[in-house]
Amino acid sequence: MLRGNAILGQSGGPTSVINASLCGIIQACLQQEAIGKTLGMRFGIDGFMRDEVLDLGREPAAVIEGLRTTPSSALGSCRHKLKDADFPKVLEMLKKHDIRYYFLIGGNDTMDTIHRVEKYCRQQGYELIGVGVPKTVDNDLCGTDHTPGFGSAARYVALSVQQAGLLARDMQRVDQYVIFQTVGRSAGWLPAAAALAKRSEDDAPHIILLPERAFDREKFLAAVRRCHDRYGWCSIVCGEGVCYADGTPISASQTKDKFANVEFGAMGGTSAAMMLHRMIREEFDWRGEFQVCESLQMCAADRTCPGDVEEAYACGRRAVELAVAGTSGVMVSIVRESTDPYRWSLGTAPLAEVALGAKPMPDEFINAEGLSVTQACVDYLKPLVGPLPHYVRLGNVS
Amino acid sequence: MLRGNAILGQSGGPTSVINASLCGIIQACLQQEAIGKTLGMRFGIDGFMRDEVLDLGREPAAVIEGLRTTPSSALGSCRHKLKDADFPKVLEMLKKHDIRYYFLIGGNDTMDTIHRVEKYCRQQGYELIGVGVPKTVDNDLCGTDHTPGFGSAARYVALSVQQAGLLARDMQRVDQYVIFQTVGRSAGWLPAAAALAKRSEDDAPHIILLPERAFDREKFLAAVRRCHDRYGWCSIVCGEGVCYADGTPISASQTKDKFANVEFGAMGGTSAAMMLHRMIREEFDWRGEFQVCESLQMCAADRTCPGDVEEAYACGRRAVELAVAGTSGVMVSIVRESTDPYRWSLGTAPLAEVALGAKPMPDEFINAEGLSVTQACVDYLKPLVGPLPHYVRLGNVS
Repeated sequence: MLRGNAILGQSGGPTSVINASLCGIIQACLQQEAIGKTLGMRFGIDGFMRDEVLDLGREPAAVIEGLRTTPSSALGSCRHKLKDADFPKVLEMLKKHDIRYYFLIGGNDTMDTIHRVEKYCRQQGYELIGVGVPKTVDNDLCGTDHTPGFGSAARYVALSVQQAGLLARDMQRVDQYVIFQTVGRSAGWLPAAAALAKRSEDDAPHIILLPERAFDREKFLAAVRRCHDRYGWCSIVCGEGVCYADGTPISASQTKDKFANVEFGAMGGTSAAMMLHRMIREEFDWRGEFQVCESLQMCAADRTCPGDVEEAYACGRRAVELAVAGTSGVMVSIVRESTDPYRWSLGTAPLAEVALGAKPMPDEFINAEGLSVTQACVDYLKPLVGPLPHYVRLGNVS
Repeated sequence: MLRGNAILGQSGGPTSVINASLCGIIQACLQQEAIGKTLGMRFGIDGFMRDEVLDLGREPAAVIEGLRTTPSSALGSCRHKLKDADFPKVLEMLKKHDIRYYFLIGGNDTMDTIHRVEKYCRQQGYELIGVGVPKTVDNDLCGTDHTPGFGSAARYVALSVQQAGLLARDMQRVDQYVIFQTVGRSAGWLPAAAALAKRSEDDAPHIILLPERAFDREKFLAAVRRCHDRYGWCSIVCGEGVCYADGTPISASQTKDKFANVEFGAMGGTSAAMMLHRMIREEFDWRGEFQVCESLQMCAADRTCPGDVEEAYACGRRAVELAVAGTSGVMVSIVRESTDPYRWSLGTAPLAEVALGAKPMPDEFINAEGLSVTQACVDYLKPLVGPLPHYVRLGNVS
């Protein structure tokens, strides 16, 4: 059994349940004989290289437990992409703190970080076990059925679209459309989740724009028109990463972040939703609004899906169990045993596979027209989001 | 006792609890001997003039009860400002449906509508009792301590700012600021409510921009700089109606709505928050985001304050009690008996007084610098918003 200290870190954007994973790792570490100190890196790998480390064993048990229901990344996070020149410093810190167990909670870029650190240490003859815990609201990690953090963000999206749909229908004599923009980079999982809000045909959402389908302005406006003719109003959901056929984001304002990802959303101030809003106003001269909640979708702890919290915590604990059993170079993964009833278990995915790229929505989840999702998609998403509230409608009997 | 039918309507923007008021009116009407049918106007006074009326007595009791927890305006709403030419049509409809009791749930424009209809009927020799039920997320109605709908919207604001504050703090190595824009027209009550999120000095929000104070770009940027120097990040909350000293909205994109209100928010696409975002980027070249949730603040039924639901319902019932006792030309008002413990009762305010204008935040609620609120303000708001969740923080002990 490899004895030594453990270092934990959170990387990339937060979610509403990433601290539940952290809680799971910490509580499991503190119970392991093989693990001496349980250390946390402040602000991810960036802070670790500056030796910004804290001893999590000195935190009150109540605070560690409170992480389960605290959103965002309590250790702090970063988006630092390790350069070759960084590895000596990382190894120096690992040696300084006598670290043999290395856990990062994050997305595919983070899994790549663990992979490269573990590989470097092996090359340098330093024994290190590295295990990744999945995390992302985007749900675009390969090697796992879904990711912790997604279900809760999806619930936020579905609730928001459901509620805003009622408002838009009730205010249709004043405003004719409502647009909700989700985060999610290039994957349509979050906008797709809005579909769960629909119970009757006329319910929101009416149109879902997924990054997996090229945006066609004429087709979109024709769909908006049909919807308005039919219902008197229109609810549109769009992922921040929706692009034209040539790859240009419809938000038309882009900068790149450290991982060569094209920056969507409000960096330049413009957004996909704002552009759609302008298109509709110019074409139809209607009144309407667009809603850009950004990171609020990623930290709404009061809107978590209980199953998401449970799975996030379980992934954290499992990472430690795998590590002390000698398993290295893997990410804990979630396996869907069945959809209805929903049953899940945990597995592993090799880090090298996960680090490869982002997992888009499969074709069978997107409808033929490309402006909504299929029943198969709804069935997949339902257990991850949990039941939505029941709101009443008044009849039209006079 | 005046015998006849009752007509109910919802007017202006919805809230998360306006249907609770509707529920209260309906349930009280159905129990009154003096009231025959309980009718509802579809889409407010606009629908009423088109004879779009439904018999609420024919709705299942479970649906009426379900209104308590259903957001937005189940009857539909409008923003139609009655013109002199409208009154004969209104009277014609009142006579057609043998209406003697007239209830509208809305803001100051709505109270003015009831007032003018009631006055016209009296001039025409038609006996009509009109009572208003207060409603607005803006909390800017005169004649009442606060308005149903405000507490829940304020809770949405406080939760959002609290959660986004954790995220901004944890991500400060990546992004340096976060801006949350509230609805609320020209009153600062909603941005002020964000102050409840602050438990420690470094918690969000750091700067609150209220429409009651002229925006000063240099003063604002200096405050942002100080905050960033001190904490490493900055949380800003701004009301949509913030203006420069000359009255120009900082959103710099305006159109007028039917009641001669300057249109804020995303009508032209630009917004106050977007402008602040651009100012900060241009001045400091930092990364950050802005959040414009718009109507989501007005229909988040899962984030209502239980006290708000209770008061909204009670106002609805009281309107009917007043009406059948012969009281006309008043709005039900909420009286604050004490703040701690919080105790309230119901009173009345003459419609003529309420219709006059909007109630701004008093000077004693705004701090000297004009970029935040006072303890007196926090004390006033606390019972209306309800307790916020407790989130944990990790220490910095190494």
